Amino acid sequence: MALPVAVDGMGGDRAPDAIVAGARDALNAGHDVVLVGDPDRMGDTGNVPVMAALEVIEMHEDPGRAVRLKKDSSLIRAAEAVRDGHASAMVSAGNTGAAMGAALFRFGRIKGVARPAIATVIPVPGSTPTVLADSGANAECSAAWLVQFAQMGAVFSRVRLGVERPRVGLLSIGEEPGKGNSLAKEAFALLHDGAAGPGVDFIGNVEGRDVMSDAADVVVTDGFTGNVVLKTLEGSMKFAMGAVVNALRSPGVDKSASDAILATLLPLAAELDPETYGGAVLLGVDGVCVISHGSSSARAIVNAIGVADRAVADGLVSQLAAAVAPAG
Amino acid sequence: MALPVAVDGMGGDRAPDAIVAGARDALNAGHDVVLVGDPDRMGDTGNVPVMAALEVIEMHEDPGRAVRLKKDSSLIRAAEAVRDGHASAMVSAGNTGAAMGAALFRFGRIKGVARPAIATVIPVPGSTPTVLADSGANAECSAAWLVQFAQMGAVFSRVRLGVERPRVGLLSIGEEPGKGNSLAKEAFALLHDGAAGPGVDFIGNVEGRDVMSDAADVVVTDGFTGNVVLKTLEGSMKFAMGAVVNALRSPGVDKSASDAILATLLPLAAELDPETYGGAVLLGVDGVCVISHGSSSARAIVNAIGVADRAVADGLVSQLAAAVAPAG
Repeated sequence: MALPVAVDGMGGDRAPDAIVAGARDALNAGHDVVLVGDPDRMGDTGNVPVMAALEVIEMHEDPGRAVRLKKDSSLIRAAEAVRDGHASAMVSAGNTGAAMGAALFRFGRIKGVARPAIATVIPVPGSTPTVLADSGANAECSAAWLVQFAQMGAVFSRVRLGVERPRVGLLSIGEEPGKGNSLAKEAFALLHDGAAGPGVDFIGNVEGRDVMSDAADVVVTDGFTGNVVLKTLEGSMKFAMGAVVNALRSPGVDKSASDAILATLLPLAAELDPETYGGAVLLGVDGVCVISHGSSSARAIVNAIGVADRAVADGLVSQLAAAVAPAG
Repeated sequence: MALPVAVDGMGGDRAPDAIVAGARDALNAGHDVVLVGDPDRMGDTGNVPVMAALEVIEMHEDPGRAVRLKKDSSLIRAAEAVRDGHASAMVSAGNTGAAMGAALFRFGRIKGVARPAIATVIPVPGSTPTVLADSGANAECSAAWLVQFAQMGAVFSRVRLGVERPRVGLLSIGEEPGKGNSLAKEAFALLHDGAAGPGVDFIGNVEGRDVMSDAADVVVTDGFTGNVVLKTLEGSMKFAMGAVVNALRSPGVDKSASDAILATLLPLAAELDPETYGGAVLLGVDGVCVISHGSSSARAIVNAIGVADRAVADGLVSQLAAAVAPAG
């Protein structure tokens, strides 16, 4: 019997309403789901079953403390449902640090993984998306961890995006091997020497401008830099979209013409929308944990549930385990 | 008598032609300039005088080695012209690391400055641009250096952009004080405790999405993260522009309508063009050094010369010196 995806009904800026709506839509679309949260606050969940959890970890709570103290929170209960074999995967749009903590402490790590990393899918219109890892789990990293992020990122690109032989780049500030801070230089040396094994096609350093291009399939960096890149991209894309819409609405522009142009831009806007890719995945924990954007709508939750279901079906966790296992 | 701006005629992807053309245009626009480089290779410089320097530091040469060995290079000679009182400032579109090295070793540092930082002006249409410092001079930084970048960045925002009381943010991965890597946390503590002095209005942590917004006037970070942000912004803006132009050219769109829309977008595109702001400034060296984009056109060089002239006229260096001087 297939297990349902456990959805944190209380996490996210638009929780519980948007989350409940997303879970209902996902059920209608054929996904097996269960909502975890406070039944009184979640309201009518339609045919989606509920797993009661009466505490809520708020968006800006200290993650470490919250995970330790709120044992009856929707996040902890969702993680426990996976651990205890009642759910196949967890999805949350809530406090990212707490979601990571819940998954890490309840699932445990995959054998051999030093630190889990968040893998985010960055849309590259006209080309395969780029996987950015780590995009925020570890503010401070060692070079050896980056080698594992390369291994796990390559598996994720293959499994999630169908890239047969992902090209893995190391984010730095120049293409030459000698460029970068000490972490980047040390990681370059390890990756260049083949420390990531034959599964990683290391193409050398890449730069910020390459993240949203076809230059690499996987971009590896520490979680501080990765998160800054992600937020910078979000900000600049939001800005660019706003500028274009303003231009189309300006007085000199004919309505039918602006409609025609909008029609050509809409598929692009949809592809760039962070909601389309359905959330980031925490790689390296011994289970599937999908972390959706804090501002997730019902549609984002449906997509995140889809990502979770496919990760389970594709055996993502066992493929990651095989990739990080020491040779021999 | 006013001194000319020394322009490195041999540095940049489009050197010497675009640089010579820019220097000639700047002269015609009333700037006092001198071209430094190989007279044979620079060709006709019109009325722009030439200071001979027969070596060239190539774009991808190792900066440290090049600065040490190529004593008759255009970059070194330009820096020496400033040091020896033959020029007021230097401008180069060449090897960034070598330009920094030439300025640092020939000018020396402003008394009290631990490390110079590159300050880049990030356009924010509809609002004052954001100063990003350090955007690439120091791949590895200490928290105390970041405090100085805050002091120098605030002076630069005031002098260069006319912001009376610049709001200074620290780039991190969350607004809360506890967020970030150890460098960001340590710098936060120092800035929060007023280590930068009364000239810095510290507004706390900012995120990647705030760089291109009105959230802060100055964004302080280490040169690795800053350079990644800069390149990420460049890449995403280039991508967005390309997407819009494609949409306007698509078959369903009427030519007169797309022309009207382009007309409304052109001022924005001009404002976003990195050439408009005329290059980054190396803050903390005892002289004015403007570093223009490697792909600089003649127009970029004219703007960079304008930035150099204004920095000299406004006494930027002495204002920086006053800002970093220990109180007492």
